[in-house]
Amino acid sequence: MQILVLGGDGYLGWPTALHLSAAGHDVAVNDNFARRGYDEEMGVDSLVPIATLDERIAAWKDVSGKTINAYVGDLCDPEFTHSMVGDFRPQAIVQYAEQRAAPYSMIDQAHAVYTQTNNVVGTLNVMYAIADTDIDIHLVKLGTMGEYGTPNIDIEEGWIEIEHKGRKDRMIYPKRPGSFYHCSKVHDSTNIEFGCRTWGMRATDLNQGVVYGSDTEQTALDPRLATRFDYDGVFGTVLNRMTIQAVLGHPLTVYGNGSQTRGLINLVDTVECIRLACESPAERGEFRVFNQLTETMSVRQIAETVAREYPGDCTIEHVDNPRVEAEDHYYNVTYQALEELGLQPTLLGTTLIEQLFDVVERYKDRVDVAAIRPTVRWRDTTSQLHDPSGTLAKA
Amino acid sequence: MQILVLGGDGYLGWPTALHLSAAGHDVAVNDNFARRGYDEEMGVDSLVPIATLDERIAAWKDVSGKTINAYVGDLCDPEFTHSMVGDFRPQAIVQYAEQRAAPYSMIDQAHAVYTQTNNVVGTLNVMYAIADTDIDIHLVKLGTMGEYGTPNIDIEEGWIEIEHKGRKDRMIYPKRPGSFYHCSKVHDSTNIEFGCRTWGMRATDLNQGVVYGSDTEQTALDPRLATRFDYDGVFGTVLNRMTIQAVLGHPLTVYGNGSQTRGLINLVDTVECIRLACESPAERGEFRVFNQLTETMSVRQIAETVAREYPGDCTIEHVDNPRVEAEDHYYNVTYQALEELGLQPTLLGTTLIEQLFDVVERYKDRVDVAAIRPTVRWRDTTSQLHDPSGTLAKA
Repeated sequence: MQILVLGGDGYLGWPTALHLSAAGHDVAVNDNFARRGYDEEMGVDSLVPIATLDERIAAWKDVSGKTINAYVGDLCDPEFTHSMVGDFRPQAIVQYAEQRAAPYSMIDQAHAVYTQTNNVVGTLNVMYAIADTDIDIHLVKLGTMGEYGTPNIDIEEGWIEIEHKGRKDRMIYPKRPGSFYHCSKVHDSTNIEFGCRTWGMRATDLNQGVVYGSDTEQTALDPRLATRFDYDGVFGTVLNRMTIQAVLGHPLTVYGNGSQTRGLINLVDTVECIRLACESPAERGEFRVFNQLTETMSVRQIAETVAREYPGDCTIEHVDNPRVEAEDHYYNVTYQALEELGLQPTLLGTTLIEQLFDVVERYKDRVDVAAIRPTVRWRDTTSQLHDPSGTLAKA
Repeated sequence: MQILVLGGDGYLGWPTALHLSAAGHDVAVNDNFARRGYDEEMGVDSLVPIATLDERIAAWKDVSGKTINAYVGDLCDPEFTHSMVGDFRPQAIVQYAEQRAAPYSMIDQAHAVYTQTNNVVGTLNVMYAIADTDIDIHLVKLGTMGEYGTPNIDIEEGWIEIEHKGRKDRMIYPKRPGSFYHCSKVHDSTNIEFGCRTWGMRATDLNQGVVYGSDTEQTALDPRLATRFDYDGVFGTVLNRMTIQAVLGHPLTVYGNGSQTRGLINLVDTVECIRLACESPAERGEFRVFNQLTETMSVRQIAETVAREYPGDCTIEHVDNPRVEAEDHYYNVTYQALEELGLQPTLLGTTLIEQLFDVVERYKDRVDVAAIRPTVRWRDTTSQLHDPSGTLAKA
């Protein structure tokens, strides 16, 4: 089928485009390179060197013989978005093209507003492009498990049957997002559910856990096909960051007491989930929600796993939690739907972590140690982009 | 106390400012005159002639001896918003300054995006101004009953105790908004609840029913103090529109079968609710939600009430519903909190409707008959601003 991957130059978008192309789909990617721009702004860089989008696409042609088309432009430009969808006429659109770091959205007013307008307006424009072009185009939208927060009841897949004063209804699962970024994903879900209910749109909202890993079957074929690997305090996810700390001989930093529990998923499962969702589209008018994770672990357990598996010495250090989030909370998540579609989970094991240690070992000279520290505190509302005194990290 | 009324030049904002000033508070208003601009854009006008903000403020000084300060500017400009809050240093901020018409938000992509960015960014900037100036400033935010939709269970005041698989939590009441405008109010609520939970903000979110009425005790004191009265298919609310149809001898138009039930509130109760909310602020960190209505009626019952009370002949006509909304639905709403604070409800009665008939009679020469028809259909996504063929109204 024809699949358009928005944000196709990013950590997940690029491997997804390769995976879909390898599976025989006709793939196009869109990007405005905002993610590469954040690197410039924050003075950080991917641990693994990455090629330009043109180089990546040429490399994939060399390796596989397959063509991926690129549409370079900003989804916040409605005419660009409209003409791209009309030109490529996809059956499915995978929407990764959002600012995706919670700490980035909490830097200050400007970053909060940027995150919300970029994410919400971009997705609204995609919805209008679908409605105007062909309402049967299936929107596969990346959300996050962080939209739910940590409620004291089981987390269901997007909807919940509520019984109240002797009556019942099936309702959207109430959200408790953990940052302005997470709020933006809740806003998207609100808009998309409305589009399904009102226009008859088909949508799958994927509430994804924390992704870890550096390679898929396709990215490993050629260094020019590598995807980015972020480890900094703003864009780095917890497991990737801890493997770097281990290799450098630094203590693994755990925010707070580390009892915060999170859903996890390996990069190879992420790309496979997208394929499964695209190949089994939502019904007309259906707002379908899947929780996209394969296991749950506390941050402390993640640190203990990394420390145990690392062949050298490794210690764990608890630092003041820069975020405002619950510790010692209940956490029980339903995630059946993707396995029912055929997902074979790749659980966190020794092999996977070893592979990560290898990647980090290979590129450890590129690590900027200062970038690993948490630099954004949730309770500070004034600009935290540059912290000359270094007090944030010391606190 | 010092109270800043955002959107203080609007239908509700202006009478609220007068009511708070009359009650002895030190009031300032903010507006960017966007609402007057929509009149220009849509080619419509308030039935009741309204003075400029400067004239209004001068008239209030003449009549009462009291001063209302004005801050003219756009809340989407963060520096303006920040310096206004820092300059006036209010104890409470009443946030009316949002695009408030569901049909306007459904005209096309540009109006949907405008509504959501204007509303969400403006309110985010107010939140940052509060957090940076004084986290104890109480945000009194106008929401709408249309955020809830028409669930099959009772509608509670913003929060609901959910029992699920043997466990319990108090959670945000799940929303089912009826337009991109209603979605924007849900986004605001999501952001504000996060601000309360994370920064310790104090907020009251008022989910208001459909407002009707043209005068308050203060606006009636001088014609220069009058507030706007909208009756057009985009900005007019149902009861105000029907009184015009009655006076003109037109059939009262009911969308669909008219069984859709809505919460109602009189303008005089709206301004009193705001006073009560300001004078009893939310606790630190509390996201307090009140349902701001005094009775519920179906659209058909509203039409029947107008027809019964109108002294001349009056008929009711059912037209195809331009919106996508449930008819024949369950609707039972809790609205205790404001009465517990002291609200004495002004229920829809003969006197109130007679007063409305009088207003319309006085200004009926100003009515643009063509503007009354519904011109925006929820299922059409391309521009519906100008409909040269007139097919929308005929359908």
